[in-house]
Amino acid sequence: MKQIFPKDLITTQEWDKPALDVVIQLAERFRTERLAGILHNNLLPARTLYSIFYNPSTRTRTSFMSAMTQLGGETHTLNPSGLQESIGEVIKDTAGVLSRYGDAISVRYCFTKEAYGDGNKVLRTYAKESSVPVINMECDTYHPCQVLADWQTIKQRFGENLKGKKITISWAYGKYIRPVAVPQSLVLMMSRLGMDVTLAHPEGFDLDQKIIRQAETNTTLADGSFEIVNDMDEGFKDAHVVYPKNWGPLAAMPDMAKAAEMQEPFKHWKATVKRMKLTRPNGIYMHCLPVDRGLEVEDKVIDGPQSAVMDQAENRLHVQKALLTLLINNRG
Amino acid sequence: MKQIFPKDLITTQEWDKPALDVVIQLAERFRTERLAGILHNNLLPARTLYSIFYNPSTRTRTSFMSAMTQLGGETHTLNPSGLQESIGEVIKDTAGVLSRYGDAISVRYCFTKEAYGDGNKVLRTYAKESSVPVINMECDTYHPCQVLADWQTIKQRFGENLKGKKITISWAYGKYIRPVAVPQSLVLMMSRLGMDVTLAHPEGFDLDQKIIRQAETNTTLADGSFEIVNDMDEGFKDAHVVYPKNWGPLAAMPDMAKAAEMQEPFKHWKATVKRMKLTRPNGIYMHCLPVDRGLEVEDKVIDGPQSAVMDQAENRLHVQKALLTLLINNRG
Amino acid sequence: MKQIFPKDLITTQEWDKPALDVVIQLAERFRTERLAGILHNNLLPARTLYSIFYNPSTRTRTSFMSAMTQLGGETHTLNPSGLQESIGEVIKDTAGVLSRYGDAISVRYCFTKEAYGDGNKVLRTYAKESSVPVINMECDTYHPCQVLADWQTIKQRFGENLKGKKITISWAYGKYIRPVAVPQSLVLMMSRLGMDVTLAHPEGFDLDQKIIRQAETNTTLADGSFEIVNDMDEGFKDAHVVYPKNWGPLAAMPDMAKAAEMQEPFKHWKATVKRMKLTRPNGIYMHCLPVDRGLEVEDKVIDGPQSAVMDQAENRLHVQKALLTLLINNRG
Repeated sequence: MKQIFPKDLITTQEWDKPALDVVIQLAERFRTERLAGILHNNLLPARTLYSIFYNPSTRTRTSFMSAMTQLGGETHTLNPSGLQESIGEVIKDTAGVLSRYGDAISVRYCFTKEAYGDGNKVLRTYAKESSVPVINMECDTYHPCQVLADWQTIKQRFGENLKGKKITISWAYGKYIRPVAVPQSLVLMMSRLGMDVTLAHPEGFDLDQKIIRQAETNTTLADGSFEIVNDMDEGFKDAHVVYPKNWGPLAAMPDMAKAAEMQEPFKHWKATVKRMKLTRPNGIYMHCLPVDRGLEVEDKVIDGPQSAVMDQAENRLHVQKALLTLLINNRG
Repeated sequence: MKQIFPKDLITTQEWDKPALDVVIQLAERFRTERLAGILHNNLLPARTLYSIFYNPSTRTRTSFMSAMTQLGGETHTLNPSGLQESIGEVIKDTAGVLSRYGDAISVRYCFTKEAYGDGNKVLRTYAKESSVPVINMECDTYHPCQVLADWQTIKQRFGENLKGKKITISWAYGKYIRPVAVPQSLVLMMSRLGMDVTLAHPEGFDLDQKIIRQAETNTTLADGSFEIVNDMDEGFKDAHVVYPKNWGPLAAMPDMAKAAEMQEPFKHWKATVKRMKLTRPNGIYMHCLPVDRGLEVEDKVIDGPQSAVMDQAENRLHVQKALLTLLINNRG
Repeated sequence: MKQIFPKDLITTQEWDKPALDVVIQLAERFRTERLAGILHNNLLPARTLYSIFYNPSTRTRTSFMSAMTQLGGETHTLNPSGLQESIGEVIKDTAGVLSRYGDAISVRYCFTKEAYGDGNKVLRTYAKESSVPVINMECDTYHPCQVLADWQTIKQRFGENLKGKKITISWAYGKYIRPVAVPQSLVLMMSRLGMDVTLAHPEGFDLDQKIIRQAETNTTLADGSFEIVNDMDEGFKDAHVVYPKNWGPLAAMPDMAKAAEMQEPFKHWKATVKRMKLTRPNGIYMHCLPVDRGLEVEDKVIDGPQSAVMDQAENRLHVQKALLTLLINNRG
């Protein structure tokens, strides 16, 4: 019999919907129980997660740390500069050894170094060379933990059945050029929930076309809708959920200077109070953080009543506790 | 009913004396019990403290780490360079998120960057933006955890009632210019214990005048005494406790070159064996460490029978365990 | 009565054989029990190990981390750059303070800075100034934890009685010049097991002569044999165990450029498939990792059926759990 959970989580697309449903259900249970003061430290006692960061991280780093602490285990955060990798050890050897010591490995490699996809390749190499589960903490292509937390957040606001609910994933102008991992994972995940998915971005900021095609297939299977528009207002119109954030143009990456130049004409792509009025009355504003305040969004929006960003951030904790428990305790 | 413990500890001055008394009593109990092998890991099971260090730290870093381990929880040490703060995230967002994941936040920001007080401002911002307790691990103005450990140390040597006991907080020459946080927190705290407080420093090394005035008020209320002298020998004379350490002149900070120049004439401000003879026969030498051996103090003093420095350091552990337990377990 | 275990482990040579036997026995028990899912987190509850790294580390770092987690305690990894040592604190003060907070200290200082032996001096200083056990995580002279894991690995393959078994510790060409700690600790340890020890290296790559003489004494006492050859093939011939790895010439250290130049003529010192045929049919290939693949060894050897490298790496975990338990729980 096939395991319901694959060994690794690189992208939600590689997991069956029923397996993802279990993650969200368990995450929601963990959230409720934590509010009630119920401890979960009997779930992964004396277990080790190795978290490897090639790039900065706040939410991902700290939510994985606390997740393991709350489950009774421990996260050991590793920085490649302190590892033998800094003096030539190959991932094959590192991953092989960590698999002998610990119970899971999570890796962030979200900034493309040479060509789009090389961050994902590093993740795939860790997964291939590890005998323990490998969790993607954001590569340059996918950010599965984020979009699971986002799904949980949307479910908390709009219920189980998301059919007919419009979510707009929009580009926004920012000071720091961000990876495409979040919008790409969002179109992949939200299209499977049967939502009406709108992707809004200026010309030249298209996402990976292979992922767009997959999202279209997902849409058909889930009986939802999917469209791409080049106008932020049009995207916001009648949306239940808007998710405006910066990403760099794939064509320029990893040339940050060129990416910055390409986005200069689009400073007006900002989540403003005025624009939020275009959404449904109960519409919510989402952002995975970190955010460039004043550029991607006005403070009054992100700090206002429509903002769901703190719940999104919190749900990272619950989703990751669910993933760790399910992946570590359900092996073979 | 007002909570006995405020949400945060930024400076001892903002806590009522009865609340501080509880901290010291609990710290002393933790010390005794640890010597007896009694574990405290049922007090904060599966709890997370986030410790954020903008500057180097040994005692503070490791004592907070072990404090949480011994209480059954875990410290997650964060370095701003590994956080999104390094690429523009504001404290408001970081503090908000950490409040969703963990149970307390502690922050060190003790080197003034632009103008005296900006380290304290960072601490205040963390406190304001966090819903969980924030503990000051030394800002550029206060170091409350240190002086609570110092109080416990003095109590271990001279008992509960410190009235009539003379403590001299003295400047000393050092290679590395240190913040004023320790002497400032010392005059604030010791003046509340009814001690006879002497502050000794060369001209030009005055502490923050607002704090001096507060110490004078404390002295009046506690029926002790407070004086400032510009002579190290005079300070040491008949003291029960001497606490000689370096700090930079407020007028120069953060200009370290100017600070170094200003202290050059005062190389003779050193805790010597000879000077220690001026203190009471049972007088003790205190220092928060790190110390510039050979400059601030002769080895024979700091390693000698009058030295209380290792007990001081150890008490950091007990005081912080008390603070963490009380702050995390007594939230409104 | 003399304690069976010394306070510290700086080199296996300073421990009696019966004490080392207990370590290996306990490590082997821990290995079996972990495979059976038996937890050991009741052995060091709420205990702290401070791990201090002056140089990069993967296996040592992560195996000590997970060791403490699995024993119910915690490893706090410290980087000297984040400690007050970075601004002048002496080891005496740091070690004294850590002894008040935690339960053991482990230190890596494996790259000679000025003269061969200075890494070992740092370890000795930590041991002298700490009241808690100090474990050598590799200095520039010894790597005791590695060779204990190696002994466990050899025992797993060849049984308890190693008399008459030939082990060849051989030099190999590598891109990164490595310390002599592993080969030196190997000749010291394996000569005590009564093995037939061969040391193979090019001329000019001699190990510390004091250690060679000690190994000869060990050999006599254990009734084994010890020889040095300058030919890799001769070393491999009929060996049960080959352990070919790079190290820098002591005469050149720490001049890495000169060391690199000195090894240039010896690129053919590589563990090849062809050379492995010279060993016994059941001969094994060992390496402590990290390894320079393609230079020190061909992939087909290290990834092939004779390779024991992953078991070696895993045994680090078990040996260190045994050491930590025995050292922390058996103090005076």
